[in-house]
Amino acid sequence: MSRTVYVNGDYLPEEDAKISVFDRGFLFADGVYEVTSVLGGKILDFDGHTVRLERSLKELGMGMPLSRDELLAIHRKLVADNGIDDGLVYLQITRGAADRDFAYPDPDTPQSVVLFTQSKPGLAESPMAKEGMKIISIPDERWGRRDIKTVQLLYPSMGKMMAKAAGAHDAWMTEDGHVTEGTSNNAYIVKGNTIVTRHLGNEILHGITRAAVLRFAREAQMQVEERAFTLDEAAEADEAFITSASTFVMPVVELDGAPIGTGRPGPVAARLREIYLDESRKAAI
Amino acid sequence: MSRTVYVNGDYLPEEDAKISVFDRGFLFADGVYEVTSVLGGKILDFDGHTVRLERSLKELGMGMPLSRDELLAIHRKLVADNGIDDGLVYLQITRGAADRDFAYPDPDTPQSVVLFTQSKPGLAESPMAKEGMKIISIPDERWGRRDIKTVQLLYPSMGKMMAKAAGAHDAWMTEDGHVTEGTSNNAYIVKGNTIVTRHLGNEILHGITRAAVLRFAREAQMQVEERAFTLDEAAEADEAFITSASTFVMPVVELDGAPIGTGRPGPVAARLREIYLDESRKAAI
Repeated sequence: MSRTVYVNGDYLPEEDAKISVFDRGFLFADGVYEVTSVLGGKILDFDGHTVRLERSLKELGMGMPLSRDELLAIHRKLVADNGIDDGLVYLQITRGAADRDFAYPDPDTPQSVVLFTQSKPGLAESPMAKEGMKIISIPDERWGRRDIKTVQLLYPSMGKMMAKAAGAHDAWMTEDGHVTEGTSNNAYIVKGNTIVTRHLGNEILHGITRAAVLRFAREAQMQVEERAFTLDEAAEADEAFITSASTFVMPVVELDGAPIGTGRPGPVAARLREIYLDESRKAAI
Repeated sequence: MSRTVYVNGDYLPEEDAKISVFDRGFLFADGVYEVTSVLGGKILDFDGHTVRLERSLKELGMGMPLSRDELLAIHRKLVADNGIDDGLVYLQITRGAADRDFAYPDPDTPQSVVLFTQSKPGLAESPMAKEGMKIISIPDERWGRRDIKTVQLLYPSMGKMMAKAAGAHDAWMTEDGHVTEGTSNNAYIVKGNTIVTRHLGNEILHGITRAAVLRFAREAQMQVEERAFTLDEAAEADEAFITSASTFVMPVVELDGAPIGTGRPGPVAARLREIYLDESRKAAI
């Protein structure tokens, strides 16, 4: 069965879901995106993602072409029409289609808005949460504004392929001797009673799941340090994990071929995953 | 009159020239491009661009979906059908359309191939060649593999807008105190009888026009140094210029608000522009 896809006001079968070759998302990667999880047919952290979306657009000199409520209505219609119980909603907004020129087009150029769903049955019951992820480290070769969630995702894609080639699940990227983040997730280590994850800045994405997980960790009286950490610190950690909108909290058990801690998923990651899923399901809309 | 655009084997009116929203060029900037100039209905430096295209694809683990001769035939048909006397042919190849995943899709996924023309009457008689360009300097915030000609062009676009906002025509990007290149061109200074331009590496695009111009310069007994230079060196230079496929050789007369040399286009740039245009027209196909 073909999915229904939203393209600039129309709900189309996926075969017909097309955009102009002159779209600046295609020609210049001049667009931003968000991915939101759906559990039990309800959307997680919708407002967090919408606020970040608006910030990404603003940083690139673009406005929000649709209101929060209009966006929510599109999300809900796609979730319903495509029968999504567990899965993802992908949203992309670009500066629109115009004859090719590095300079931005007339500000009146209509932006392009695309949304589609991906069905992921059992998304919250991933076997990976029990087994843990194997990670390699690679240099961070991305551009300087990783806080803007643009579609310039070629290097993260290359990183995922490097991890695959090394028999691992993902890669953590390093810059100036410190871990920035995973290819599509934020990175954490745990030492004693302290969770360490990189501070916010232009170097990493400001994860919506990151913000929620850190809040839950602090509420549960865990110590949190937001600072850069090295690969050596990660190698010596008691446990490690990642967070993202689509993996929630996922334990990391191996780094560059060596086990982290016991080499098994740790209790902090398990606890935070449970709290995050419980709280997010309760607040889902 | 609507242009004819090539999309995956079809010649379409531009209104119908569309690609799937699942194309990895749109979702991941997972694609490369080339721009070739047309003068008098003939294509300049076609083989140089084709060789670089194949290298870009190879660096990203992609093959060439069409032969050199097939690509040339498409270029020629678009030039003819669109009545291009002077102008550009834009070519983009992506990893194709597949359900969204950072990992590359099945290698059998058909790549997407898009070509379109832009008519630029009098392309070689630009008034800018007589007046010279004003340049500002900005930090180079691009990713680490600028030698691959990917569509990750958001920062160069932002740079062009920063230049515009400052009343300038373009920006030179700097990294670790040295100029890398312009937003869509290679950068040169001239001091005495020596032309200085950054050496090849991952930090800059390996310009096809750059290679030709340096060859002509050496043939004309000019000294060429391929090395990084600073903004201070540029400020003290006798003259400066840029090269690109669509601007050929273009003098730079102002950097960050201060004149370079006399503040007028210099003789080296004028001479190289003349040689480049003469030789390229002769070799055009």
